[in-house]
Amino acid sequence: MRTIEWREDGVYIIDQTKLPHELSIIKCMDYERIARAIENMEIRGAPAIGVAAAMGIALAAKSSLGKSIEDIRENLERAAMRLAKTRPTAKNLFWALERLRKIWINEEEGIIEKIIKEALSIAEEDVISCRKIGEYGSQLIEDGDVIMTYCNAGGLACVELGTALGVIKMAFRLGKRITVFVPETRPLLQGARLTAFELKHEGIPFKLITDNMVGYVMQKGMINKVIVGADRITRYGDIFNKIGTYTLALIANAHNIPFYVAAPISTIDLETSTENVIIEERDPKEVLYIKGVRIAPEGIDVMNPAFDMTPARLISAIITDVGIFKPPYDFASLR
Amino acid sequence: MRTIEWREDGVYIIDQTKLPHELSIIKCMDYERIARAIENMEIRGAPAIGVAAAMGIALAAKSSLGKSIEDIRENLERAAMRLAKTRPTAKNLFWALERLRKIWINEEEGIIEKIIKEALSIAEEDVISCRKIGEYGSQLIEDGDVIMTYCNAGGLACVELGTALGVIKMAFRLGKRITVFVPETRPLLQGARLTAFELKHEGIPFKLITDNMVGYVMQKGMINKVIVGADRITRYGDIFNKIGTYTLALIANAHNIPFYVAAPISTIDLETSTENVIIEERDPKEVLYIKGVRIAPEGIDVMNPAFDMTPARLISAIITDVGIFKPPYDFASLR
Repeated sequence: MRTIEWREDGVYIIDQTKLPHELSIIKCMDYERIARAIENMEIRGAPAIGVAAAMGIALAAKSSLGKSIEDIRENLERAAMRLAKTRPTAKNLFWALERLRKIWINEEEGIIEKIIKEALSIAEEDVISCRKIGEYGSQLIEDGDVIMTYCNAGGLACVELGTALGVIKMAFRLGKRITVFVPETRPLLQGARLTAFELKHEGIPFKLITDNMVGYVMQKGMINKVIVGADRITRYGDIFNKIGTYTLALIANAHNIPFYVAAPISTIDLETSTENVIIEERDPKEVLYIKGVRIAPEGIDVMNPAFDMTPARLISAIITDVGIFKPPYDFASLR
Repeated sequence: MRTIEWREDGVYIIDQTKLPHELSIIKCMDYERIARAIENMEIRGAPAIGVAAAMGIALAAKSSLGKSIEDIRENLERAAMRLAKTRPTAKNLFWALERLRKIWINEEEGIIEKIIKEALSIAEEDVISCRKIGEYGSQLIEDGDVIMTYCNAGGLACVELGTALGVIKMAFRLGKRITVFVPETRPLLQGARLTAFELKHEGIPFKLITDNMVGYVMQKGMINKVIVGADRITRYGDIFNKIGTYTLALIANAHNIPFYVAAPISTIDLETSTENVIIEERDPKEVLYIKGVRIAPEGIDVMNPAFDMTPARLISAIITDVGIFKPPYDFASLR
């Protein structure tokens, strides 16, 4: 199945906290359950949480059937406020909510049907976006490449296929012989759990490493390209992505290894300046416990920022669903 | 107690695989148990495994009481061969074995007593070395410094006090207000488990982070010094240390943060060129399982190099027990 699916009786999502050991499906009956799924990272990845938020609004719309237009708008606004509070960094979440808000603000009739239709469009467009990113990006991949990716920018971070991992899958499906290096991506191990799961399923050869091996493998000349996803891209091409991406980009640059970012244009934020993007600080328990086992002494201080910022100067190209952008970046033309 | 102690009835070591949750002591009755303790990393850290190897030889000597001199030499040689095979990268192990070998090769009388005495000297000298490193190194630390260390180069990596962490402790004891950042150090989490344990015990404020947060905290200007230990230092100042050290050094350099290495001169290898140092590749299970819990799918490829090489050009100073060395490094004068 897809990472997230709209069905007659609810929204079905793959529980990503249970992978790779268990393929467990969560049925969400209301926007509150969707909001909690985003917060708990049962669903994660910038495009996927955009789609999840849209489907959360669609569930709120459906539950408003038979209500007055004022009540419908109030319900949808309340759902949007709740969903907007789940996670602050990924742009796609806010982009999806804004896109749907235009409908309930501007339309007077058939709002519920229009909202549901638009939410489903957002999901379908994500599928098409990933394919386009894969088509554009795979042109950058050569036969024999050894590519490092990071965290999970795969089908599980989207509706299907993926962004950075979509590029890799597409190149592989086109017959290019590729090997992938997968840093495990602490604290929640999306590399070890999710990217490894997807690559294994796809039959693409890969090696798992810990995050602190990045310098070693690049120094040894084992990697010739890096490709990662993004949670937010600012106007001039600074990117926010999983904590550790900045470290990866610096190390890649020190070894003259091309560093690519792959994301749909719904990830681009033309309004917020880089300094003003909020980096989510998550529960210290994510660092202190690995699958319920405590790894450090009691009573200590922990930091747990979920993202970091990679400046545009470290990025060789940004692969989007409307084409490949090269530096100097200015996305204002996309407005 | 000390990390390792010679007592009448055996060699006592703190089991570092059980920390920080349990302070468990292992009693080693023969060199084979010492060898296994080094392999399993029940004892680890370059100076500590040097001392452990010496005490392993001392146990072999003790068990040779009453034997002919030929048998004593054969026993000791066999023990040395076994101990030399435990771990390939740390210089101190081979340095300790060579130092003792000189006795059983050159001496004709009282070999057993001389070996035991020399092994105990190696342990006592390590204590003094750490104090000297701490005294020299603490001169580089200023009031208010926020220092990143890495892995565990503390008392647990030596007999007591530590090298990199010894510098930090000494500066703190001298009244300098210091905060320490501790990357957890995957796969075996020596930062989260051991360095956190020591800093907490010492009352030094610190923050635990995951290894991939290094770039983030340096970019944010949170760190103004880095100090790490070393497992081997080559003649011109390239250092081998826990995997991830090279990444740390590159990131520190990109942010103009001084990067210091602290180690006794027994860590310096004047013979082996940097390219010829063997980097130990450890069991993939160390990456795949965290405290017995599997974190990745079955049937996948894993790399697990235990060390990496940081070139001299990234190192601001090397703090030893005979003084602080600045670049360009050439340790030939120590011969």
